[in-house]
Amino acid sequence: MALFTKEEALAYHEAPRRGKTEVIPVKPCINQKDLSLAYSPGVAEACKAIAEDETKAALYTGRSNLVAVVSNGSAVLGLGNIGPLAGKPVMEGKGILFKNFADIDVYDINLQVESADQLIEVVKTMEPTFGGINLEDIKSPECFYIEERLKKEMNIPVFHDDQHGTAVISGAGLLNACEITNRRPEDLKVVIVGAGAAGIACAKFYVSLGVDPGNVFMFDSKGLIYEGRPGVKEVSRIFAQKKDHGSLAEVIKGADMMLGLSVGGLLTKDMVASMAPDPIIFAMANPDPEISYADAKEASPRCIMGTGRSDNPNQVNNVSGFPYIFRGALDVQATEINEEMKIAAAHSLADLAKEPVPESICAMYGGREMSFGPDYVIPTPLDPRVLEWETPAVAKAAMDTGVAKAPIADLDAYRKSLTERVSASRARIEAHVAQYYK
Amino acid sequence: MALFTKEEALAYHEAPRRGKTEVIPVKPCINQKDLSLAYSPGVAEACKAIAEDETKAALYTGRSNLVAVVSNGSAVLGLGNIGPLAGKPVMEGKGILFKNFADIDVYDINLQVESADQLIEVVKTMEPTFGGINLEDIKSPECFYIEERLKKEMNIPVFHDDQHGTAVISGAGLLNACEITNRRPEDLKVVIVGAGAAGIACAKFYVSLGVDPGNVFMFDSKGLIYEGRPGVKEVSRIFAQKKDHGSLAEVIKGADMMLGLSVGGLLTKDMVASMAPDPIIFAMANPDPEISYADAKEASPRCIMGTGRSDNPNQVNNVSGFPYIFRGALDVQATEINEEMKIAAAHSLADLAKEPVPESICAMYGGREMSFGPDYVIPTPLDPRVLEWETPAVAKAAMDTGVAKAPIADLDAYRKSLTERVSASRARIEAHVAQYYK
Repeated sequence: MALFTKEEALAYHEAPRRGKTEVIPVKPCINQKDLSLAYSPGVAEACKAIAEDETKAALYTGRSNLVAVVSNGSAVLGLGNIGPLAGKPVMEGKGILFKNFADIDVYDINLQVESADQLIEVVKTMEPTFGGINLEDIKSPECFYIEERLKKEMNIPVFHDDQHGTAVISGAGLLNACEITNRRPEDLKVVIVGAGAAGIACAKFYVSLGVDPGNVFMFDSKGLIYEGRPGVKEVSRIFAQKKDHGSLAEVIKGADMMLGLSVGGLLTKDMVASMAPDPIIFAMANPDPEISYADAKEASPRCIMGTGRSDNPNQVNNVSGFPYIFRGALDVQATEINEEMKIAAAHSLADLAKEPVPESICAMYGGREMSFGPDYVIPTPLDPRVLEWETPAVAKAAMDTGVAKAPIADLDAYRKSLTERVSASRARIEAHVAQYYK
Repeated sequence: MALFTKEEALAYHEAPRRGKTEVIPVKPCINQKDLSLAYSPGVAEACKAIAEDETKAALYTGRSNLVAVVSNGSAVLGLGNIGPLAGKPVMEGKGILFKNFADIDVYDINLQVESADQLIEVVKTMEPTFGGINLEDIKSPECFYIEERLKKEMNIPVFHDDQHGTAVISGAGLLNACEITNRRPEDLKVVIVGAGAAGIACAKFYVSLGVDPGNVFMFDSKGLIYEGRPGVKEVSRIFAQKKDHGSLAEVIKGADMMLGLSVGGLLTKDMVASMAPDPIIFAMANPDPEISYADAKEASPRCIMGTGRSDNPNQVNNVSGFPYIFRGALDVQATEINEEMKIAAAHSLADLAKEPVPESICAMYGGREMSFGPDYVIPTPLDPRVLEWETPAVAKAAMDTGVAKAPIADLDAYRKSLTERVSASRARIEAHVAQYYK
């Protein structure tokens, strides 16, 4: 089901203009007066205003709408450590997603660094440039240390999407799956296969949602992580079981939930059949999940199954998260994206899934029927309503936790303004892109 | 002659969209297929191609058209060390100029750094992101050290515009003034008032054009720079005279050229009258030059006078330089902007000034008459022909000196393509900006 050929993918990147984004003025700059406002001498008024009161930077520059997508290229997609130059197309692409879904401007910053500490130092110096930092495709375990330190040492949101994206979206699915199957997160036995950035972040986030850490069974490439097992990485040790409980086939017996962040085909029908009734399965390996939707349903017809694929129900896609999480954080000038904001994001997605789905959205997915239930526990990534649900929820959580430097007084008006704002941006994008293809 | 009020300048920066630029896709990104090309899985083809052959980054990303305007905000306009956040409006404005005059995309990178060495380290790590580095508003003397090291240690062009902009443009004026007054650069006695980044860079560049370093008399705020004088900065010592020759009034007697980079009104009519016949005066203090055009002409009617003002003849404005120098350097993927490329830029501007001036250009300057002579030794900053003259000259010099990674076979076709290319970009800018003001 390849949507395109290799040649088509390369041609898309090369022509009619190389790369995927450009930086364009939003102010008139044609005549001498324009230019004297944009640059010297007019610009001095903006500089002086900011020098006197640094909060004015949010008014007179694009900073508070500008996010750095930062990578060292050490864990790019499934390609591995291909380096910052070869990773640049992904970071430009991330910029397109931020812009398209939330009118957020992105500079992709691809860094040739020697160490995690150097990356941290470099990113910190860029704080005057950006309203937020999205770390991307940085390998584990350094990514944890990098994010943790940057969060602590910077006064703007720092968010490693590879960690939290899957966590928030699958967390929303977990909440609804519990509701549908009459479970509580507190009682779930969760098996996580894959102890990389996403696996560990998901485990942590599920704990934030109520899961008991003692009920998390995490596997890395060498098997179950338990205390004293050789080769267990420091970062995954917090989820070490007290003792070895055996192979995946043994541990998964009776499990309520399986999260796969590993390789396609790893999960057998027998394993699924051995899980608790109505199991929750998020099989995120790309492009082929740990078990196919059809096989999982065959093994356990009432399972709640999610994958990364758009042609399956319950597509877990980070794009349901980062654009809106940052939109909300930027709009209240949050100094961080904290746990409460991520939890609010997950709950907002879970809540939206209970709303009737407009036909226009079903049409985007080939007319697939969507209504709250096992095959629809999370909204689709292309659901335009996510903007109005998730963004204000994140903004509100930022205000409630006291990290919003620019609180919004009328959240309802804010919510209602979002669609028009992003639609207008998309119309500008379409008009602009059309100029290249006319 | 204020073109605008403070309120107008601030309003320009704030509304309808905050700041002056945005980052916008140039590729379709509306439907699922678009997004699968822009991001995973399609983007992997571009990544893999670059991982195999790094020159492909110029094809599949925007890198080779992307310049970082880097500042630590330590010498912003005439405002001084206002810091990187307050300097951001200037750097965004610089981006507008790059885009408007040469379709070059700019990320403004405002760095909170502790030292010159830290700035160097940070900028070096960003090499995978950019096709070139424009250093901006970094104070002297660190700027010399920073540029020198980055030029040596990076494999892309690094250019400190505050140094070389004035040097190249006034250097073009010097060449033509010599021709008009039957002088040779080798014989000029040159007085430079102001020993900051621009003053020293101009002195160096004039030497590249043939001026004898022994004939350069440089003044800092404490007077003439000579060997053994207390308080002479290391960087200006290369232009120290053997002995004290007295005050400016004394030294300027008989001088052929005066370059002012100091404060308005510093030069008296008597001083100008005491210079050699037909003196060359570039009085660059802003907004009021070291001596007004009218006063200079009164003191020495046949002087060749340039200023930074658009309402005087011979406006020396960096915008006649950096957009085209970078355009040429980027288009041949030059690994540096070397002295030969700057000299070529100056000569191209000098040559263009000998061409008849279209009425449309005179009209931009209130119908002022322009033809090669004392009141027209350099093209105007808004002369659209500069693009086709300066850009290919710089590209050719890069090729001739062996620093072009992507030489252009047909320079004439390249020259002819430039206007259409930049005009198309301007049309896109105008259309885009108009969407905000409709």
